[in-house]
Amino acid sequence: MMVMTLHIFPEDRVHFYWDRDLEPVIRISPGDTVSYELREVSDGQINPASTPEVLRTLDWGRVYPLAGPVYVEGAEVGDALEVEILDIHPGPWGWSAIIPGFGLLEDEFREPRLKIWDLSRGDHTYFREDIKIPLEPFCGTMGVAPKEAGRRAVMPPGTHGGNMDIKHLTRGSKLLLPVLVDGALFSVGDPHAAQGDGEVCVTGIEAPMHLSLRFDLRKGLRLDAPQYTTSPRLRFGDEGTRYYSTIGIGPDLLEASRDAIRRMVSFIAERWKMERWEAYILCSVVVDLRINEVVDKPNWIVSAHLPLSIFQEK
Amino acid sequence: MMVMTLHIFPEDRVHFYWDRDLEPVIRISPGDTVSYELREVSDGQINPASTPEVLRTLDWGRVYPLAGPVYVEGAEVGDALEVEILDIHPGPWGWSAIIPGFGLLEDEFREPRLKIWDLSRGDHTYFREDIKIPLEPFCGTMGVAPKEAGRRAVMPPGTHGGNMDIKHLTRGSKLLLPVLVDGALFSVGDPHAAQGDGEVCVTGIEAPMHLSLRFDLRKGLRLDAPQYTTSPRLRFGDEGTRYYSTIGIGPDLLEASRDAIRRMVSFIAERWKMERWEAYILCSVVVDLRINEVVDKPNWIVSAHLPLSIFQEK
Repeated sequence: MMVMTLHIFPEDRVHFYWDRDLEPVIRISPGDTVSYELREVSDGQINPASTPEVLRTLDWGRVYPLAGPVYVEGAEVGDALEVEILDIHPGPWGWSAIIPGFGLLEDEFREPRLKIWDLSRGDHTYFREDIKIPLEPFCGTMGVAPKEAGRRAVMPPGTHGGNMDIKHLTRGSKLLLPVLVDGALFSVGDPHAAQGDGEVCVTGIEAPMHLSLRFDLRKGLRLDAPQYTTSPRLRFGDEGTRYYSTIGIGPDLLEASRDAIRRMVSFIAERWKMERWEAYILCSVVVDLRINEVVDKPNWIVSAHLPLSIFQEK
Repeated sequence: MMVMTLHIFPEDRVHFYWDRDLEPVIRISPGDTVSYELREVSDGQINPASTPEVLRTLDWGRVYPLAGPVYVEGAEVGDALEVEILDIHPGPWGWSAIIPGFGLLEDEFREPRLKIWDLSRGDHTYFREDIKIPLEPFCGTMGVAPKEAGRRAVMPPGTHGGNMDIKHLTRGSKLLLPVLVDGALFSVGDPHAAQGDGEVCVTGIEAPMHLSLRFDLRKGLRLDAPQYTTSPRLRFGDEGTRYYSTIGIGPDLLEASRDAIRRMVSFIAERWKMERWEAYILCSVVVDLRINEVVDKPNWIVSAHLPLSIFQEK
């Protein structure tokens, strides 16, 4: 008989930096499942009644509360930790923001802006009454303790995983993380109810989240970086869904990404009559950045894909 | 009664560079359709009997034969030319290659390599007997004459469009090009039977192509770069299709793309027992590069997505 064990991760145990010397909160065996109730990324500094002013005085020492570490018995350096997203479901509200000093277009969007979302319907939300956004929740941050000793900030991702913001790590996906210390020391946080590839304004729909993960070990896989499998759903509708795309062209992919998003912000703001900052937040939540070619010297192409199905007939 | 006019573009009329002073081959009106039989991009230098040696002596003056220019009556500077892909279908064969001095990993893949494809089935082909690739044809190069006088090479794309290699410009898609000279002077070429986002080894499946395009004008749209609409089909199967993904992490998106593709080449070569150059060509044809985040300072994430449905059970 196979025995599967479910662990309920204690809600009051979070940490705010990576450190291989943090004490494990729970110990599990390969094959076990862990269930979490995750905090949104500001750790309560932002709530449904907040105004944009809160963004000027964020305590960054309290951003990125991570649930963990989880010690996985038998995990050794050189193994891969397999993390399967069994279940994920957002809490009843969320937020998105333009935070001064951050984001792909930080030099053009300098004012703090805050958008509060009603997520009480569970599978979709409204940007405004005629713009309906399907939810596709995932965790922006999943990782193991880094190899090196000492504290490490959560914001930059690394080969240990961490704050990768890969929107494709939805329910049914499996993430493989290189084990860098005995026990792996896995932590998770930064849950998003939706996000576009790029996360251009620096937030998705940040939301508290219910989460269940199943862990397993792949012995001796010797990954040098995370890998994953995913099964993308057509959250924006059926095969007939159309995308509108702007592009950026040039020798630098980051500048090309900026150009594509600038053009998309203009397109959305003009076509659907909204402020540019609103269009920028909408891009961060639904627009996907794709690299179309990186070989036609010296100019590369980046596309920004907007799903037109979010716009309802009035 | 609406009169629609079909023009058959003369097969023997191609040009090998952009130039606003080229004489138009045909003149059409907005609403007209033009049908083409396009040459593959080497203009006959590569054929189904070719060996890799041909790649060492390619005459680059004959690469990129473009069918055009087409003069569109009434097209003025500041308008947008709308190009709808009405029909597109590949000829019976194609080729892919590693060409020394080109490609995302040019420093690692220095030997010329050539792969000839049997496309006689029309909607799919085989990389080898257990790897089946759906075809999704599009034209790598569609553009209008540049604003500036003088000859301009075809390889680098620009704000006039050109060699953008956007795989999403499949049947049913619409491309908007800024009109930069009176009459627009549209040309098309570089047809691909399939390609991944990135086109990492510098070729897709290069193939002769049957093509029908319908043209229209959007007066005074004043685009500063091409834009497009697309309706992506699930060419790799239904919603259950799984993707395997490697990633690259770091402050430069080009290096991150290289890392993601290097890891994917290793994964494919080991898992499906093939040479690294074969895996690299396979990446160019089916793997998509996506920018997952460009905001978690200082490290960005690029994913390479491999559709697992191409691998058949043996």
